[in-house]
Amino acid sequence: MQTKIILPEARIPRQWYNIIPDMPGPLAPVIHPGTMQPVSPDDLLPLFPMPLIEQEVSTQRWIDIPQEVLEIYQLWRPAPMYRAHRLEKALATPAKIYYKYEGVSPAGSHKPNSAIPQAYYNKIFGTKRIATETGAGQWGSSISLACQMFGLECTVYMVKVSYNQKPYRKSMMQLWGAEVIPSPSNRTNAGRSILAQHPDSNGSLGIAISEAVEDAATRDDTRYALGSVLNHVCLHQTIIGLEAKAQMEMIGDYPDVVIGCHGGGSNFAGIAFPFIADKAHGKQVRVVALEPASCPTLTRGVYAFDYGDTAKMAPVSKMYTLGHDFMPPGIHAGGLRYHGASPLVSQLVHAGIVEARSVQQLACFEAAVQFARCEGIIPAPESSHAIRGAIDEALQAKEEGKEKTILFNLSGHGHVDMTAYDDYLAGKLNDYEYPAEEIKESLSHLPKVD
Amino acid sequence: MQTKIILPEARIPRQWYNIIPDMPGPLAPVIHPGTMQPVSPDDLLPLFPMPLIEQEVSTQRWIDIPQEVLEIYQLWRPAPMYRAHRLEKALATPAKIYYKYEGVSPAGSHKPNSAIPQAYYNKIFGTKRIATETGAGQWGSSISLACQMFGLECTVYMVKVSYNQKPYRKSMMQLWGAEVIPSPSNRTNAGRSILAQHPDSNGSLGIAISEAVEDAATRDDTRYALGSVLNHVCLHQTIIGLEAKAQMEMIGDYPDVVIGCHGGGSNFAGIAFPFIADKAHGKQVRVVALEPASCPTLTRGVYAFDYGDTAKMAPVSKMYTLGHDFMPPGIHAGGLRYHGASPLVSQLVHAGIVEARSVQQLACFEAAVQFARCEGIIPAPESSHAIRGAIDEALQAKEEGKEKTILFNLSGHGHVDMTAYDDYLAGKLNDYEYPAEEIKESLSHLPKVD
Repeated sequence: MQTKIILPEARIPRQWYNIIPDMPGPLAPVIHPGTMQPVSPDDLLPLFPMPLIEQEVSTQRWIDIPQEVLEIYQLWRPAPMYRAHRLEKALATPAKIYYKYEGVSPAGSHKPNSAIPQAYYNKIFGTKRIATETGAGQWGSSISLACQMFGLECTVYMVKVSYNQKPYRKSMMQLWGAEVIPSPSNRTNAGRSILAQHPDSNGSLGIAISEAVEDAATRDDTRYALGSVLNHVCLHQTIIGLEAKAQMEMIGDYPDVVIGCHGGGSNFAGIAFPFIADKAHGKQVRVVALEPASCPTLTRGVYAFDYGDTAKMAPVSKMYTLGHDFMPPGIHAGGLRYHGASPLVSQLVHAGIVEARSVQQLACFEAAVQFARCEGIIPAPESSHAIRGAIDEALQAKEEGKEKTILFNLSGHGHVDMTAYDDYLAGKLNDYEYPAEEIKESLSHLPKVD
Repeated sequence: MQTKIILPEARIPRQWYNIIPDMPGPLAPVIHPGTMQPVSPDDLLPLFPMPLIEQEVSTQRWIDIPQEVLEIYQLWRPAPMYRAHRLEKALATPAKIYYKYEGVSPAGSHKPNSAIPQAYYNKIFGTKRIATETGAGQWGSSISLACQMFGLECTVYMVKVSYNQKPYRKSMMQLWGAEVIPSPSNRTNAGRSILAQHPDSNGSLGIAISEAVEDAATRDDTRYALGSVLNHVCLHQTIIGLEAKAQMEMIGDYPDVVIGCHGGGSNFAGIAFPFIADKAHGKQVRVVALEPASCPTLTRGVYAFDYGDTAKMAPVSKMYTLGHDFMPPGIHAGGLRYHGASPLVSQLVHAGIVEARSVQQLACFEAAVQFARCEGIIPAPESSHAIRGAIDEALQAKEEGKEKTILFNLSGHGHVDMTAYDDYLAGKLNDYEYPAEEIKESLSHLPKVD
C-alpha cells in the first residue's frame, strides 16, 4: 500500500509554468496609483528588479529555473505527495485523496518557493536590501531565509498584533538575520501618520504593505518583495503543481478535482495552474479555491480594479476584491486575510475555469483535527481550508457512491500555530458571516479606472 | 552539486539492527528495584507488553519491522540525508559534512521511530491505554500520535514547568487525542507525596517517570512506555543509521566520524549502532556522543548500577550515571537532561568503542545559528550538540589540512523551541560547569548491587 510518492531527482522540474499565454483572453492592465494610467516596466523599477518585472508580463510558457535556485530548492524539493489512506478509511469514502505537502520547507510552508527566486533575482540585479511586510509571518520568515542565503539585508514590517501574539515566526526571521519592525512604526511616513491618529494601532496587512513599499521606494539600495498576488509569485509556485503532476503520472493516476486554499492566491496558483493548462487542452479536471467565509473575496467580492493596499500606494489591479479598506475579523488563518486576490486567479474565476467556495472557521478546524489524527501531520490553519474542501468532495463521492480522485495542497504545517488548535479544542472559536451591508460599504470606495 | 540524498523506496530498511549480539561482552543484568535481584521477563509484564520485553533481551541480529509499522513510517521515512555544502563553505573546511534529518516526522523529531512500534506491539498484545512521561514534550507528542494511530488511549505526565512554559508540545499531544497531566499530580501516590511536601513543585523527569510507572503498574488495561534508554528503543531507532548507511552507499561515500547528541541515548544509538556494527568488522569509523556540560553523564558520571528514576521505582541498570537524585540545571535542551544513559551506549563508551564529549550551551547555540543561516533548517536545541561536534571536527580537519567525511544526526527541528533562540540572541543564556563536589554527593547515593 503506497502512502508516499517520491519524485526521483531526474524528474525535478527545471522550468516554471507561466499560465499567461494560456489565459482566457488578454490580461487587464496594471494601473499606477498616482496617475491612474497603465504602469510601464520602468514605473515598477523602484520596487522590483527587472528580471521579476519581465516575468510579471512574460508570455513565454516555460521559464527556466536558475541553477542557483534549484540548488536551494533541493533542501526540501521535490516535496512529497501522499495518498491519505487513513483519512479515506475514516471517511469510508470510495474517493482517493492525495495531498501535496509543502510543510517540509525550512520555513514550514510553500512561501520559500517564491522567496528564494525573488532573493536570487534581486541579488543578480544588484539589490542590497529587501523591504517587505508580513502578517502572521509565513512570508516574512521565508524571505528572511532567502535573503540570508543570498547575502541580502532584510527588513520585515510585521503587523503589530502578530508581532506581539505570534512571537515564534518573528524569532525565526531574527534567527535568519532579518530586522523585524512592528508595524505601524516610526520608520515611515505611512506608519507615522497612522500612529499620530491611533497611537495604539495594532496594525494591518494593508498598513504594513504601505510601510514596506515606502521604505523600498525611498532607498536606492532597497527593493520591495511581495509573497503572493503577483504573476511572478504565482509563476514560482507552479513548481508545486508540476511536481504533483509528475507524481500522479508515476502512479498512473490523475485528479478529478484539484483543491487549494485561497488568500492572495499563491499556493492555490501553485497547485492549480499546471492542471488548468491540461484543462485548456481538453482534460476533465475541476479546480476549486477554498477561502474563509470571514474574508470571502472570490465568492462575495466584485471583479473590478482596486488598490493592493489600504493606503492606496500600491498598484491598482483588476481582481476580485472586497474593497481596499475592508477589514476582515482576526481569524487564525492569518494568511487568508486579504481584501484582494491574484489577478490571474481572479480572471480564471471570472471566466468560470476555477470554482470558488467559502468555508467557515469551525468546519475547517474540524477537518484539520480529523486530518491530524488520521495522517499525523498538523496542518497550518490556512491549509485547513483545503482539507475541508477535500473532505467535502470525498463525502459527496460517498453519498453518490462514485469513485473520484481528489488532490489538495497542504501548504504548510501548524507547529507554530498551536494556540489556534488550543482555542478550537477549548470551544473558544466562532463562525463569522460578514454582513452584506458592510461589504457593500467597502465596495463603494473602489477607484475609478477608465 | 548534490545536496539531498533520497533513498529509493525499494531500499527502505525492512529490519531493525539489534546490536546485542555484537556487544563487547555480555550485558549486565537489570535489577528489580524492590528485591535488588535480576528481573525476569514476568517482572516486567505489568509495565511492558511481551513483544517489547522479548526485544529488550533478544540476541537476534536482525528483527523484522512489522508491515503495520512500515506503513506509518512511510509518512516521513526514508528521512532525507543532506550534504551541508553551504556550511562547509562558510567553515572553509576540506571536510565533507553530511546530516541525516529526522525533523521531517509529524512530531518534528526522531521519537516517532520508537513510539509507532511501541504503540503497535501494545495494541497487538491487548493493551488499551498507555501511561508515559515527558519533559519538554518530544516523546509525549510522539507517543500521543502513535496511540492515536493505533486506537489506544494515552495519558502523559508532563513535567509541570514544561507544561506551563512550553505549551506548544502540550497542545500537540491534546490535538492527537492524549490526556496531558502536569506532574507532580494528585493522580498518583508518588505525585501526592511530592505535593504534600512541596505544593509548588515544578516537577522533574524523575518524578514524572515515577507517576507514569505507578499509573501503569496499578491498572490492568494500562502499560508504560519509555522514549529512550531501553534496548528496544535503541533497536527501533537504528532505522536512522541503516538508512544513512544506504544513502552513503548510494553516493559512494562512508563517514570517518559519526556524531549524535546524547541524553538518554536513543537518537545517538539510532545513528551510531549500524556503523558500530561495521567497526566490529574492521571498518575505520569513529563514533562520538555529544552531551551537555550541564548534565555530563558520560563524561563525568560513573559506570555503575543505578535507578532509572528519582523515586527508585524503576528498574536498576548498569549505566553511566550522575546519581538518580542528580538535578541538572534548566537548560533549553530539555531532552538531554537525564541523570543516566542507555546501558548499551554506556557499555560501548566503557569499552572505548564510543567516544564521549561534553559541550557548553553557548557553543551549541552558536553552532545552531550558523547552521540555520547556512542550511536553512532550524535545529532543536538538543540537536545543536551534534552540530557543535560536527563543526568542531570540520574545523580540526581544516587545521590539519585533511579531508574527512563527517556524518551527524539532526534529530529534530526547533520550530517550537524559538524562545531558546530568542534568549540566545538576546544574550540571556549562560554556560554552566557542574561543581565536582555536587556530582560526588549525588554519586554517593547509588544503590548497592552484588
